[in-house]
Amino acid sequence: MLLDFYGELLTDKQRECFDLHYNEDLSLSEIAEQLGISRQGVWDNIRRAESAMKEIEEKTGLIRRFEGTKRALETIRKQAEEIGGLTQGRAEEIARDIVREIEQLED
Amino acid sequence: MLLDFYGELLTDKQRECFDLHYNEDLSLSEIAEQLGISRQGVWDNIRRAESAMKEIEEKTGLIRRFEGTKRALETIRKQAEEIGGLTQGRAEEIARDIVREIEQLED
Repeated sequence: MLLDFYGELLTDKQRECFDLHYNEDLSLSEIAEQLGISRQGVWDNIRRAESAMKEIEEKTGLIRRFEGTKRALETIRKQAEEIGGLTQGRAEEIARDIVREIEQLED
Repeated sequence: MLLDFYGELLTDKQRECFDLHYNEDLSLSEIAEQLGISRQGVWDNIRRAESAMKEIEEKTGLIRRFEGTKRALETIRKQAEEIGGLTQGRAEEIARDIVREIEQLED
């Protein structure tokens, strides 16, 4: 999540090390070998990437705000599904449109 | 909008100059007087604040993404209002809940 929001604000090396470690689940030695840098260098890049992104999140709170919206959309999706089950005709159609719109946002 | 998302990533002086200029509509001379710095210093702070925030937005696209969600929520709010007008009982209640939830997100 941090990388998805703030990854582009890191250096290429920081982003690569962080991604290989946390998303691709590689060990520090494997990353070091793959990128041709020292194991310590990999570790430094991961640590700096993490603290840079956490600091940005602490200052801006953008992920926290986004999570709030996501929770609300999930509630609304369920409510629209419930309306779809309770109604017919035009109201049911619109309720299904709402569900579709929310699913598209989640893509 | 830029300041609301990324203002906390600026220096205090940059944020203050940018805010006084764009939100409080003060002139460069007025800001210079108020902060006790030169007119050129005010201008530099505003320019640096703007380019820093635009660069972050270009890299992350977070405001663009947020605007997309906001547009979708506005559509959903209208649809829920339409359902509310077409239905009665439980379906109408839920439709009104959806409208309320979206209004709370917009606060």
